[in-house]
Amino acid sequence: MIAGLRGCVNSPGKAEKEPYGIIVTMTTIIAVDIGGTQMRAACYAPDRVKPIKMKKVPTLASKPGGLERLMRAIEDVWSPDNDVAAIGLGSPGPLDPHTGFLLAPPNNPEWHNFPLAPQVSERFGVKAFLDNDANLAGLGEYRFGAGKGHHNVLYITVSTGIGAGVIIEDRLLQGYHGLAAELGHVIVDPDGPPCSCGFSGHLESFSSGPAIVKYVLKELDSGTRSILKRDAAMTARDVAEAAHQGDALAIKAYQRAGEYLGIGVASFLHAFDPSIVIFGGGVSQVGNLLFDSFHTSLKNRVFHPRYLEGLVITTAELGDDAGLLGARALAEMKMNL
Amino acid sequence: MIAGLRGCVNSPGKAEKEPYGIIVTMTTIIAVDIGGTQMRAACYAPDRVKPIKMKKVPTLASKPGGLERLMRAIEDVWSPDNDVAAIGLGSPGPLDPHTGFLLAPPNNPEWHNFPLAPQVSERFGVKAFLDNDANLAGLGEYRFGAGKGHHNVLYITVSTGIGAGVIIEDRLLQGYHGLAAELGHVIVDPDGPPCSCGFSGHLESFSSGPAIVKYVLKELDSGTRSILKRDAAMTARDVAEAAHQGDALAIKAYQRAGEYLGIGVASFLHAFDPSIVIFGGGVSQVGNLLFDSFHTSLKNRVFHPRYLEGLVITTAELGDDAGLLGARALAEMKMNL
Repeated sequence: MIAGLRGCVNSPGKAEKEPYGIIVTMTTIIAVDIGGTQMRAACYAPDRVKPIKMKKVPTLASKPGGLERLMRAIEDVWSPDNDVAAIGLGSPGPLDPHTGFLLAPPNNPEWHNFPLAPQVSERFGVKAFLDNDANLAGLGEYRFGAGKGHHNVLYITVSTGIGAGVIIEDRLLQGYHGLAAELGHVIVDPDGPPCSCGFSGHLESFSSGPAIVKYVLKELDSGTRSILKRDAAMTARDVAEAAHQGDALAIKAYQRAGEYLGIGVASFLHAFDPSIVIFGGGVSQVGNLLFDSFHTSLKNRVFHPRYLEGLVITTAELGDDAGLLGARALAEMKMNL
Repeated sequence: MIAGLRGCVNSPGKAEKEPYGIIVTMTTIIAVDIGGTQMRAACYAPDRVKPIKMKKVPTLASKPGGLERLMRAIEDVWSPDNDVAAIGLGSPGPLDPHTGFLLAPPNNPEWHNFPLAPQVSERFGVKAFLDNDANLAGLGEYRFGAGKGHHNVLYITVSTGIGAGVIIEDRLLQGYHGLAAELGHVIVDPDGPPCSCGFSGHLESFSSGPAIVKYVLKELDSGTRSILKRDAAMTARDVAEAAHQGDALAIKAYQRAGEYLGIGVASFLHAFDPSIVIFGGGVSQVGNLLFDSFHTSLKNRVFHPRYLEGLVITTAELGDDAGLLGARALAEMKMNL
């Protein structure tokens, strides 16, 4: 443990003081969100959503020294005047939340089978907890965002991949190996297209951004007419723009993604029976283009109307902060704060 | 509450006595399992799997007076010398475990939107808890059977229908409306055959007993040769017997059911990540006929090998007692016993 590191202050370099000069210490949580392009560390006081202090550094996953960059970011939001109760860490998976090991994070050869949480814990002398970005975004939305007040939450992020976080009776679903809630890899059609993971017919292979693009490219190859031109760099955003201009193929591509998303979510309702479904991720921001067909499909596929009674279906509220606030919520949950 | 009803004794009509004639009272649980043909009530002492007293009565669901028959069965296992802590009730769904109401049990017009647990509770002056038969069989296996020692359990019953019970970190998954873990109605192929519930492509429509029979009948209609003859009364057991005699169609029918069961269970591993999968129900007793193709399919479909590390796949141990012991476990769980 580094000497002199005991907490973080309310404003940089300045401890919160009472009128007579007595230093008031607070129990704080430090949260870290390891993203594809940047790592963010933040220090949180109890009952405040805004961080006391925040630091962003580039992830540079393929360059050596990632752990040191992360450690320094934590030090930067730390200060000696308050007690840090624990550190919450969020990273792309696969990882083991029970041991705090990263297993094989994308593009980072240094961190294969890497004891991230144990190393952070040893360095700073407090407990450190790790879980994956989708689980933590779900936990963040449940605790501080769209899911506040709900006890059974299904969070789904539709983006480059499809991830999920599931809260059951106020507890994060993690599973025996820590690999639960991989709902993007639930099989919705055994004969469906290949998924990014190498297997076939997963929800992600129908409804993620790349799946929407792949469908368009395949249709273009078959001669379907469109204002979109065959382009290896095409994005789901390009397809959305074409759809907004009335392009039939682009509209169809999103409708199809929404239809399969409805099939998947119907199954998830049958499995988890939540009171709220929260959609995050870039693809889910296109609105009706995706969600009109989603809602129709969901209603057609839910096998008992009671699942839909009082069910809230909404979009995420925390944006980029979901992962960070989720890492904070994980540490609070594990410390019973 | 009926006067004089306070507990059940160790042997009918005789309280357990210490040498000097002091009556030793015990805290007991009464469990009730409402099946299609019979209702069973049993009184359990702590730490003993065998009931102190058990009573079976015909369900006669279509005949009036079902509630009175059930109440009398409870009275019959009750006696004044011990304290009954609570009553656990199991019934086919749909039902609401949070309110204790039956919603629409099969073949019983008297019990639509019926406050079963509240009525039992009022009559006997103790708390009463209700859940569906598959959830309770899962809970029973977790607590007293094949799942003992596991904390994350997936129980699947393959029979006339496909039901499930899921335990997550030692808690029964019930869901917001109490309709969670309806895994027989998870969609495994959107274009699949109709399910008993009226929707299509559910796991139950591929791998239940009637689904196996339907597949055989359809293939016979298409001219596939078999020792099985078209017969509206054909059962999955008939198909199993033909398979054991080497009939190719019958073998294929079970292989197909096992293959889809593997697809479904792969998705359930991705969703729940349990440490044990327990199969109950009549169809699952055919052994290799179903499970050879199940295991191949499961291994081909699980998208990360870690899900299978240490995973136990086994058959249920409690047989007909699973539901009753599950109803008991429900009451114990809710009373924190």
